[in-house]
Amino acid sequence: MGEFELIRRHFQRQRPARADVPLGMGDDCALLLPTPGQQLAVSTDMLVEGRHFVSTVDPAALGHKALAVNLSDLAAMGAEPLGFTLALALPQADDAWLAGFARGLFELADAHGCELVGGDTTRGPLNLCLTVMGQVPPGLALRRAAACVGDDVYVSGTLGDARLALEVFRGGVALDAAAFTRVRARMERPTPRLALGLALRGVAHAAADISDGLSGDLGHILAASGVGATLQAAELLRATSDDLRANGDMRALEYALTGGDDYELVFTAPPDQRDAVARAAAHAGLGVTRIGQIDATPGLRLLDMQQQPLALPGRAFDHFA
Amino acid sequence: MGEFELIRRHFQRQRPARADVPLGMGDDCALLLPTPGQQLAVSTDMLVEGRHFVSTVDPAALGHKALAVNLSDLAAMGAEPLGFTLALALPQADDAWLAGFARGLFELADAHGCELVGGDTTRGPLNLCLTVMGQVPPGLALRRAAACVGDDVYVSGTLGDARLALEVFRGGVALDAAAFTRVRARMERPTPRLALGLALRGVAHAAADISDGLSGDLGHILAASGVGATLQAAELLRATSDDLRANGDMRALEYALTGGDDYELVFTAPPDQRDAVARAAAHAGLGVTRIGQIDATPGLRLLDMQQQPLALPGRAFDHFA
Repeated sequence: MGEFELIRRHFQRQRPARADVPLGMGDDCALLLPTPGQQLAVSTDMLVEGRHFVSTVDPAALGHKALAVNLSDLAAMGAEPLGFTLALALPQADDAWLAGFARGLFELADAHGCELVGGDTTRGPLNLCLTVMGQVPPGLALRRAAACVGDDVYVSGTLGDARLALEVFRGGVALDAAAFTRVRARMERPTPRLALGLALRGVAHAAADISDGLSGDLGHILAASGVGATLQAAELLRATSDDLRANGDMRALEYALTGGDDYELVFTAPPDQRDAVARAAAHAGLGVTRIGQIDATPGLRLLDMQQQPLALPGRAFDHFA
Repeated sequence: MGEFELIRRHFQRQRPARADVPLGMGDDCALLLPTPGQQLAVSTDMLVEGRHFVSTVDPAALGHKALAVNLSDLAAMGAEPLGFTLALALPQADDAWLAGFARGLFELADAHGCELVGGDTTRGPLNLCLTVMGQVPPGLALRRAAACVGDDVYVSGTLGDARLALEVFRGGVALDAAAFTRVRARMERPTPRLALGLALRGVAHAAADISDGLSGDLGHILAASGVGATLQAAELLRATSDDLRANGDMRALEYALTGGDDYELVFTAPPDQRDAVARAAAHAGLGVTRIGQIDATPGLRLLDMQQQPLALPGRAFDHFA
């Protein structure tokens, strides 16, 4: 089966016409028409076999995750998805693998109205590169540089479960089957927090998605905003799952801070927006936890219940460290 | 050197503010603001070591080519470049290699006002994935599906030299040093025909860029438009270089039709636009050659000077054929 047949079979679908996608796949370029006056939000992520996923991963889970990590960037910006491109390097044209991959990909894409508008396929070591496009009205994007001294710091959902699942795969931690199923789903099928990102427009100041670990991603907000933050360990523990805390509070804190692969949002909002944050969370059907505060002293601090400093665990994930 | 330091050093530049790029690199998403009312044109290409380039290629040439092949898709659409994202998988963080790559990339980007707005870096087998974004007023994009019976068929520049260079590398053809330098530049540093694409707005009907060979890429126009084409071999030879024709007319025709990697434009325009096509070409400072005509009979035909059919050489390049 040739390249064009491969694309046609698995990735070209008969779709209802969309005014914001005047031209989809199959030409030199796709054409998109964002809502007039809105800004276009763009993000790209590359996933490499052996680095971001193992060769034995369920292809449907991989299709889901490849798009989810990109949509998560739109969520962190408060942007609404429009469409995405997919470039694939494949060692061989494996029909069953591609069918599974496309199923996982399109289930998530359709759930968020995010249209596959173009792509590229080539032979090579397995590599997935997606570029996602969304839109946001000028002035409402949740930028990393917008945190202010006095802001509350929040995270959505729970952190650290993806890392816990990874440790089970690595053989360092044992979990019962039910717990393993839960945390494995967090690792393999992360949920992009798009509804929360949209609901936080005009409410939150700064936001980022947590892909490399809270410590690193909140660190980006702090550096970009020229501020620091002090987190309460007891509050941060409330943003971890029972499955994770069952393995000890110190491990839970470490995985929450540096585990990565969470695809939750970390964001800041002024204290007078606490009710609005609660409404946004309720609207998105997702818990958020206030874990600390932005202050003027650069850096990130973690305090125990006696307000004594706790040593921060190691650095966030860095592909070349 | 870590991932973030690597990005900062080679890819983050102090740039003058642009109204159409309200937010560049360093956040979860970049923000672009296309001219209100214009459509956004998007294309993505992935380049894999050993497939699209050899490991010993000059990194500056690779940086140029990686962007050039994407800009070529904008040119084929009649779109004006805005910005691009770059995702890189690298076996190691090689400072000298990255410096050369970035130099070649940015020289071309700056020549066309195309801003690097975001990206991703990871460790893995060498792989470059670029997604380029441009803009075009509604109704003026040069779509593949727009060829009409009776249209003239044109190509820009000369075809087949990149394939000739490849054959020299493969040892199948010998060239003198000066000719090899010329055709190697066509292979390693293709020129995206952006000025021509813009000048053909409202003049040409259909267009495509020639990446897989004229036969394949014109074939996409024919299939999308539900038409066929008849080409004149003598005219097509006029769209090949002296270097290529010095290796025989049959080889020249074969490489022009199926060589690929030309990054010239193939386009169609009605006969009453011949003067306008000539003006567009002159405006772009680039030769164009009228090589045949669109007709109603599906498929692609090549005629010799006696108007007798010539057998078409083999198929266009297919990564999975």
